[in-house]
Amino acid sequence: MKKIFLGGLSALLLSASLQASAQADPEDLIQYRQAGYSFMSWNMGKIKAMAIDETVAWDPAQVQAAANAIEAIASSGMSVLYAPGTEQDIGNTKTNVRPEMFTDHEGVAKVAIAFNQSARDLAAAAKTGDRDAVRKAFAATGDSCKGCHDKYRKRR
Amino acid sequence: MKKIFLGGLSALLLSASLQASAQADPEDLIQYRQAGYSFMSWNMGKIKAMAIDETVAWDPAQVQAAANAIEAIASSGMSVLYAPGTEQDIGNTKTNVRPEMFTDHEGVAKVAIAFNQSARDLAAAAKTGDRDAVRKAFAATGDSCKGCHDKYRKRR
Repeated sequence: MKKIFLGGLSALLLSASLQASAQADPEDLIQYRQAGYSFMSWNMGKIKAMAIDETVAWDPAQVQAAANAIEAIASSGMSVLYAPGTEQDIGNTKTNVRPEMFTDHEGVAKVAIAFNQSARDLAAAAKTGDRDAVRKAFAATGDSCKGCHDKYRKRR
Repeated sequence: MKKIFLGGLSALLLSASLQASAQADPEDLIQYRQAGYSFMSWNMGKIKAMAIDETVAWDPAQVQAAANAIEAIASSGMSVLYAPGTEQDIGNTKTNVRPEMFTDHEGVAKVAIAFNQSARDLAAAAKTGDRDAVRKAFAATGDSCKGCHDKYRKRR
């Protein structure tokens, strides 16, 4: 995975977190990355309910809290959770990741950068409290999620 | 769970997120809360490795990213993930929560407030880049985690 970041991304992603995670159990790494996506999904769902579906009353503070969680998780260095050894199911820990995630370094960097940027934009939009801005940024974030899923996640 | 927040906490925690989660599947809610704790645990581990154990080189940017994730998750309104119906195992989704979590409203509010404050303090300490400040805040956060675990999590 290191190669992924030798292009556009900085030493930030190659440092402490990588070292720390390199020592971790691959099964744990798979579970941690799934936890991150799951928790982001919950928060995307809350924003969707308030900003898009309008099934829940608009609440700028809740939208901001949800967007902050998404941004912070996206910015936490999850790339290291795709360390060698995490390519396939381990025991009861199943993964939907495709092999291309571990070989298409350029493509992965592209979707990762797009996702991180969209998460930052979503948090910035949420901070304004403007529903239209949130709607637009939410759609872009959803697209960036899908951009990765389409290429690197197995169909279920 | 609503009663938990009728004391010290504000309408913030009773609003949109609660409504949204109230409509969600209880099994999903258990999985979301576990995802949140799991992802916080990963980030606590990274900070521990850098600030306490020193098994990983000190990297202020990584410490800050990890602390931001913990703070944002802690501040995302996880209380609603303890909605009615989430007290016990559901199918293959096991929970270690104790019944007291759903009845001891005052006690739960106390540990929740302490945890949220410690997470904010940890993020603030991480922002300074000062290792001693992070060590101190990390210890306090660990204590606040334990404060809840001791009372409301089953021994495994």
